[in-house]
Amino acid sequence: MKIVLLSGGSGKRLWPLSSDARSKQFLKILKNEHGQYESMLQRVWRQLQGAGLSSDVHIVASASHIEIIKQQLGDQISVIVEPERRDTFPAIALSCLYLRDKLSVSDDEVICVLPVDPFVENSYFSKITEFQYTLNLTSADLALMGTPPTYPSAKYGYIIPAQLPNMQNEYVPVSAFYEKPTEQEAEKLIATNALWNCGVFAFKLSYIRQVMIQRGLPLSFDELEQTYDQLEKVSFDIAVVEKVTNVIAITYNGYWKDLGTWNTLTEEIGESVIGKGVLSEESHNTHIVNELNIPVFVLNVSNVVVAAGHEGILVTDKPTSPRLKELMQGFEQLVMYEERHWGSYSVLDYFDKDDTRTIIKRIKVFKNAVWQSATGGSEIHNITILRGEGGFSSSARNAAYKSGETVSIVTNQEYSLSAYEHELEFILVQSSEV
Amino acid sequence: MKIVLLSGGSGKRLWPLSSDARSKQFLKILKNEHGQYESMLQRVWRQLQGAGLSSDVHIVASASHIEIIKQQLGDQISVIVEPERRDTFPAIALSCLYLRDKLSVSDDEVICVLPVDPFVENSYFSKITEFQYTLNLTSADLALMGTPPTYPSAKYGYIIPAQLPNMQNEYVPVSAFYEKPTEQEAEKLIATNALWNCGVFAFKLSYIRQVMIQRGLPLSFDELEQTYDQLEKVSFDIAVVEKVTNVIAITYNGYWKDLGTWNTLTEEIGESVIGKGVLSEESHNTHIVNELNIPVFVLNVSNVVVAAGHEGILVTDKPTSPRLKELMQGFEQLVMYEERHWGSYSVLDYFDKDDTRTIIKRIKVFKNAVWQSATGGSEIHNITILRGEGGFSSSARNAAYKSGETVSIVTNQEYSLSAYEHELEFILVQSSEV
Repeated sequence: MKIVLLSGGSGKRLWPLSSDARSKQFLKILKNEHGQYESMLQRVWRQLQGAGLSSDVHIVASASHIEIIKQQLGDQISVIVEPERRDTFPAIALSCLYLRDKLSVSDDEVICVLPVDPFVENSYFSKITEFQYTLNLTSADLALMGTPPTYPSAKYGYIIPAQLPNMQNEYVPVSAFYEKPTEQEAEKLIATNALWNCGVFAFKLSYIRQVMIQRGLPLSFDELEQTYDQLEKVSFDIAVVEKVTNVIAITYNGYWKDLGTWNTLTEEIGESVIGKGVLSEESHNTHIVNELNIPVFVLNVSNVVVAAGHEGILVTDKPTSPRLKELMQGFEQLVMYEERHWGSYSVLDYFDKDDTRTIIKRIKVFKNAVWQSATGGSEIHNITILRGEGGFSSSARNAAYKSGETVSIVTNQEYSLSAYEHELEFILVQSSEV
Repeated sequence: MKIVLLSGGSGKRLWPLSSDARSKQFLKILKNEHGQYESMLQRVWRQLQGAGLSSDVHIVASASHIEIIKQQLGDQISVIVEPERRDTFPAIALSCLYLRDKLSVSDDEVICVLPVDPFVENSYFSKITEFQYTLNLTSADLALMGTPPTYPSAKYGYIIPAQLPNMQNEYVPVSAFYEKPTEQEAEKLIATNALWNCGVFAFKLSYIRQVMIQRGLPLSFDELEQTYDQLEKVSFDIAVVEKVTNVIAITYNGYWKDLGTWNTLTEEIGESVIGKGVLSEESHNTHIVNELNIPVFVLNVSNVVVAAGHEGILVTDKPTSPRLKELMQGFEQLVMYEERHWGSYSVLDYFDKDDTRTIIKRIKVFKNAVWQSATGGSEIHNITILRGEGGFSSSARNAAYKSGETVSIVTNQEYSLSAYEHELEFILVQSSEV
C-alpha cells in the first residue's frame, strides 16, 4: 500500500500566521509530548512513522512548498509536485500516475490518500493499515474512513451506512453520502448511525485509471503533467466519491478534529499565550498567538483569538472565525514572510515616497545555502551583514563578507550571497523607482 | 492673567500608541473641522488661540517633551521645564516662580492652570477669561471650574457648592470637595447640585507663594529648580485645593470629557478605523487604531478597542480599558518609537544572538536638522541612506552621502548626520556585544 498525503489548501483560514506563501500545515504551534512545538505536517509524519508507514508515503504539494516540506521532514521525503492548484481529483490522479510511471507501482496496489491536517490519535494510523486487507476482501472500488459524530455539525460530510456498524464489523457498506447538512438534518443523520467522513480515500490504482479513462484524461504521468493547467478543477468527492456505487467505510472510534480554522486549532494548542503576550484574568477562553517581536495585551475580552504575524493582526470571535476567508476576500498585500529552501525572509518595513519604493528585509540563509537576487534597471540593493560570513558573487566581482560589513549592488546586476559554515543573516534595503 | 498648561501625566493609559517616550497629548488622532488629524495639545492650543488667550500661555513639561511640543505648536511657544516628574503641586509652584523671577510677573497677577487633555467646547475658554474678574471681585484664594455631571461617575472629583448655582450667579462659593465617590455617593452628590471638578485652578501668584512659605519651600525659581528632586511628590489637589477655605467655582455648562483612556478617547475620534484595518459588519462599537504598516482585521468582536503601534498590540474591552495601567504594571521593553527635536525613529526589529545584540532602526531627520550618535567599545553602526542627502561628520572625516549609499562606523566613534535641504531618512543597523 502506498500513502499519498495531500498537502494542499489555501492558507487564508489561519491568516495572518498562514498565507499563500506559508500554508497552515507548516505552522509550528502544536506541542508534542516533549513540549516542543511541531507543525501539523510534522505531527502527521511522526504518527505515520510510529505506525511504520512512513517509508510508503508520498506528499503531493505545489512547487513552492517543496522547500519547507524538506526542511520540516528532511531531504529524503518523496514529494510529487502539482504544476498548479487544480483541486483534489487532479492532484490524486497525478499522484497515482507518478507512482505507476515513475516508481513502477502496479495497478493492483492499494493507494490510500490522507489529508495533512487532521488532529487524531495514533489508532487512526493503525486503522489505515486495515485498508489494504479490507479492499481485497470486499472487492469494493473505494474505502473511506468514518468516525462517529460528536455533535450535529453542519460543516462536515456524512457517510450513511447500509447496515448498522458494530464492534464485530471491520467495515460497513455505504449506501449514500450527505455533504454539509443543516444542523437539523445532521441530527437525523446521526440517528441513522451516519459517520463523519474523515476525507481518507483508499482504492486500487487500477480503479482510478478506470475513472480517468471515463473522464477522457491522459493515462501517462508526463502527459497529464503537461496538460495539467487545462484539467477541470474538481474535488475527489465530486469526481469519484459521489459517483461510485461499491464503497465501504472503516470506522475510526478515536479523537478526530479538523484543525483548519482558528476556533478548532486553538482548542488543541494547549497554552493560551504563544509568543509575547499578557492575558488579563477575566479574559476567558481567549488565545494569543503572536509571532511578532512586540507584545500583545488582552484586557477583559473573552472567547476570541488574537493572532499577530508578519502579514497582519487578527482579532476574531472564536465561533465566527471560519468566516475569516470571506472577510479577507479580495484583500491583497505584499508577502511579509516566506520560508524557502535557502532560508527565510521577513519584510521589516516598506513604503513609497518621492517616486521611490523602499523595502527593508531581514534575510536568513542556511549554512552552505545560496541566496540569489538581482537588481532591475532603476533598482539599488544595500546589504548589511548581521551574523555569519558569506561569499558575494556577481558578474563583476567575488568577495567574502562578514558581520558588520556592507555590500552595495548597483542597477542591473545578478548576484548571490552564499553562507559559509554558519547561518548567514543580513538586512537588505531595496530601493527602486515607481 | 497668565495661563499655565500642564502637559504631564504618564503615557501608559493609551498604550501602545502612547508610552513614556510619547505621551497621549501628542497623538494626532482627533479630527479638526477641516478633517485633519490633530493632537490633544494642538486642539487645546487652537482653542486657546481662538479665545485670544494663546499669547499668555506657558506650558510646563518635562525636558524630553520640549522637542515634540515645539514641533506641534511652533518654536515660539514658552515651555517651563520640570527637572523631573514630581506631581502637579511642585510643577505649578515652579511655574509660578518662573513667571515671577524670569518674566517679572507681579504677585497680583492671576494664574490659571489648565490640563492639556480635556475635550471641550470653545465656550470653556470663554469661561477661562472670567477667572481674573471673579477672583478680584470675590477676593477668593482659589477659583475652580465645575461642570454639571452627566452621570454618577466614580472616576471624577466633585465640587459641592455652598449655595445653588443658577444662571444669575457667575460663580458659586464652594463648601467642600469629594474625590472619586462610589456611584451611590455620586448620585447623592448630584442631588445636592455638586459639579464635576474640571481640574482648572485659578489664583493670584501671591497666594501660591503663601502656600510655599507654609510648606517651607524656597521662593526663588533657581533655588526651587535646584532642589526639585527633593520636593515631596504631591498633587495640587492635596496640597492646596483640599486645604483652602475661601474658594469659589465658575460653572461651565458645555461638553466636557477627559480623553485619558481608550474608552473615552474612542468616543471622540469619529471614525471606527484609523490606519490599515477592516472591521466586519457585526462588530459594533469597536475601534481599530493602527499605526503599523500591516493590516488589522476584526471579525465579530464588539465593544472593544484594538490599538496597534510600534510598542505593541492592545485588545481591550472598552469599559475595562481604564484598568490598562494595572495590567501593564512592571512591564518594561525597549522604546520602539520616539519623536525628537531632530526628527523621529522607530525600531524595526531587535534581537540577541551569538553574544551580539542587533537593533535595526528607521530614522528620519528633519531638513537642516542634525542627528548625533556614537558607537561604544564593541559597537558597530551601519547606515543605509533611503532618501535625501546629508553630511556625515566624525573626528576622522567629513563626507556627503545620498540615497542608496552606505556609511559604516567602527567602534568608539562620535559622529553626526545632518540633513541638507530635505528630510533625510536612513536605516541604522547597530550591533554590539552583550
